[in-house]
Amino acid sequence: MSADAAETRARAVDAAAALEDFALRDDYALNPKFVSMVIEAADRSDGLRLRELLDALHPSDIADLMGFLSPDYREEVIPWIPPDALADVLTELDEGVREEVLAEVAPDALAEALQELDSDDQTDIIEDLEDEQRREVLAAMPEAERAAIETSLSYDEDSAGRLMQREVVAAPQFWTVGHTIDHLRGNEGDLPELFFDIYVVDPAFKPVGAVPVSRLLRSKRDSQLAEIMEPVTEIEVDLDQEDAAHIFEKYNLISAPVVDAHGRLVGQITVDDIVSIIQEESQEDILALAGVSDIGRDAGVFGMMRSRFPWLVVNLGTALFASTVISAFQAEIVKLVALAVLMPVVASIGGNAGTQALAVAVRTLATREVNRSNVFRIVWREIRVGMMNGAAIALMLGGVTYLWKHNWELSLVIGAAVLINLCAAALAGTLMPLILDKFGRDPAVASPVLVTWTTDTVGFLSFLGLASIILM
Amino acid sequence: MSADAAETRARAVDAAAALEDFALRDDYALNPKFVSMVIEAADRSDGLRLRELLDALHPSDIADLMGFLSPDYREEVIPWIPPDALADVLTELDEGVREEVLAEVAPDALAEALQELDSDDQTDIIEDLEDEQRREVLAAMPEAERAAIETSLSYDEDSAGRLMQREVVAAPQFWTVGHTIDHLRGNEGDLPELFFDIYVVDPAFKPVGAVPVSRLLRSKRDSQLAEIMEPVTEIEVDLDQEDAAHIFEKYNLISAPVVDAHGRLVGQITVDDIVSIIQEESQEDILALAGVSDIGRDAGVFGMMRSRFPWLVVNLGTALFASTVISAFQAEIVKLVALAVLMPVVASIGGNAGTQALAVAVRTLATREVNRSNVFRIVWREIRVGMMNGAAIALMLGGVTYLWKHNWELSLVIGAAVLINLCAAALAGTLMPLILDKFGRDPAVASPVLVTWTTDTVGFLSFLGLASIILM
Repeated sequence: MSADAAETRARAVDAAAALEDFALRDDYALNPKFVSMVIEAADRSDGLRLRELLDALHPSDIADLMGFLSPDYREEVIPWIPPDALADVLTELDEGVREEVLAEVAPDALAEALQELDSDDQTDIIEDLEDEQRREVLAAMPEAERAAIETSLSYDEDSAGRLMQREVVAAPQFWTVGHTIDHLRGNEGDLPELFFDIYVVDPAFKPVGAVPVSRLLRSKRDSQLAEIMEPVTEIEVDLDQEDAAHIFEKYNLISAPVVDAHGRLVGQITVDDIVSIIQEESQEDILALAGVSDIGRDAGVFGMMRSRFPWLVVNLGTALFASTVISAFQAEIVKLVALAVLMPVVASIGGNAGTQALAVAVRTLATREVNRSNVFRIVWREIRVGMMNGAAIALMLGGVTYLWKHNWELSLVIGAAVLINLCAAALAGTLMPLILDKFGRDPAVASPVLVTWTTDTVGFLSFLGLASIILM
Repeated sequence: MSADAAETRARAVDAAAALEDFALRDDYALNPKFVSMVIEAADRSDGLRLRELLDALHPSDIADLMGFLSPDYREEVIPWIPPDALADVLTELDEGVREEVLAEVAPDALAEALQELDSDDQTDIIEDLEDEQRREVLAAMPEAERAAIETSLSYDEDSAGRLMQREVVAAPQFWTVGHTIDHLRGNEGDLPELFFDIYVVDPAFKPVGAVPVSRLLRSKRDSQLAEIMEPVTEIEVDLDQEDAAHIFEKYNLISAPVVDAHGRLVGQITVDDIVSIIQEESQEDILALAGVSDIGRDAGVFGMMRSRFPWLVVNLGTALFASTVISAFQAEIVKLVALAVLMPVVASIGGNAGTQALAVAVRTLATREVNRSNVFRIVWREIRVGMMNGAAIALMLGGVTYLWKHNWELSLVIGAAVLINLCAAALAGTLMPLILDKFGRDPAVASPVLVTWTTDTVGFLSFLGLASIILM
């Protein structure tokens, strides 16, 4: 290389490093200015520039970038994803966007990219493919991997079996530390890319203990694994992923062996997969509590509409039901129009208190903090909170009403109605999710609309009913 | 040991193993019947039985058990926590319960228990102590550990510095794999209990790379660390914990080095701490969206009341404001009482749609999926969804109204009002959290009440206002 060429090359390397620095902010989020640079290059269909920009990014950041682009720009950018980053980008992409990208990649290229991944990530991507593409990609993969992926796909979608990777490190109890290390050094192919525990197994391949890799490193070469292993927390292959996540959280696990119905080691789950499960689980709770179902699939406007419209319709039904309660008291309203002015306040406060109790109950269920031994204590505590907050709000609202109308009977009626409605809110907000959970349903779905229904109905009925008795 | 004694002992061991099996269900949740056994033993103040029962539990399960017991029973059980499990139990307990337990433990015993923990868990517990107890416990600890804990406490409460542990494994670039392993074997005291990466540092102790422990194990003894290390993702000591959690998620990290303002390695964060942060963060979002603040501190009835009452009062204020809108239309309501019957429907659907948009926006912000480059696209998409859902609901509600009153003008009014309110809901639900976030506030706090205020006011105003123009 001539001196000039070397200098040009050095400058190019410097420029690439500068671009990498520029791409991310201090908190490792993508720099919006960098995203603008990508959009400009895509506007000009400047492939070389796009390749240069994408080269400056970690696969996770390319995945993030895709989320910031509109579908038109994504289509422009996809061909320029570096082939050696493709597999990792696919792993990190959101489902909706991933389908778009997968539709653009040739089956051969995809089959090749997939072979860099551990089996859990392979399965994760393959299950997103259209039937025909899936057949083509599987056909282009080596026989052994194809069979293994098909086994993974045979487990239930939300089971530990689907989440696990088949690659594990297992060793018999009598092996020494030195023997184990020598074995690992000589055995490149079949090992997981990264691993954190060595599972000690009996002759039937049942886990009897685990040795964290750092402990293996620190132990004397002639120690036997049986001496340094610790008890192991097994996960059954058909356990629900949320339950598996809860086990990881509870015992602070980094990895755990997955066993089949006979207790034999068939794979492992690592904590990075669990982090995604925890995220998804609480995401689902937040959206379900707000009456949004299943947002991930399709980020388009029609997908968003579909995820929200059904619950709006259900809400329309419950609101109309509450209206029929009001319509029974039309005569009273015409006589005392203040009732119409004040009745939404009673319903609104009740709805609010119900939502509070509901959110707390859903979280208590999600963190497995309720069971038969404390359920009555939890419900009774909520009722007391409802009564106390109800009494306090009743005093305030009664006072405001008196200042407005100087009618102490009206004040009494609205105070009593608020107190009744806040107790109803506490009961409904706590019992609804508990009952749904008891019957194996997701406690966050449907609870909110049932709770609002209760507080609207009880609110209007108690306020207008008491008014018709006491004031008319 | 005589044959009889051996048999007795073997039976005792069997009984203990049976108890361990019985304590947990298949999903590793505590068996409610086991909890009942603990309550019975506590009722009889049977200390020996309590010790036996607690001995059958993992520290994490003892922590769970505490959550299922009422305060009276906890007090009975606390003295029987096995001393060697105490430190781990404390680490796993919820804050409110932990304070109760800490109040019962002698400073000396606590200081001794703490020494089994890594520095992050030590700090976590010490910061929960009352001032006087903290002074006593620190005084009972070795000088070096005391100084280190005081340094940890000097970092901001929600910073990476507070989350990290000081114990790390670092090695210079020129060390070989063999040298590193020998060093680790010879060096028991200062190492973390578990570790997943060896940080490669330059002479100024700045991280230049990381070697996963499993890769170290698999590499040849004469390879230099510089040859096998991979790029490292540094976390600055004053970075917010939520940002640190986001970095872990994005790059699927198991551990990451923490550096000071000069880029020097001062500690590490491991993924098990991040799992707790992610849990807490989404927990806070769920509760904040439901108008519950800060539940963790005090699980008693008064604590629960305090965490909910303020938002009920704010809601009372916004509901009364919406009432003043209604009271401006009292004449119209007396003339056409159907307005009073239908107006809550318009407000309710609007509130529902606003909550949907809000939850989606809060999640989009939490997962860092919005920045300057896509914010307008996101808002515009929400407005379109609001218009489309609004039009569909308007048709349905207009139809129902026509069936009830056979007044097509009233149908038109309520349809138009719902359409207007769903657009307002989309705008408010999306913009409120974005604006709060822009000004550095938590987007989940205060957003809900502002959104409901908007949809109540717009709902009543558009329905009653249009009615007064078109129908009167």
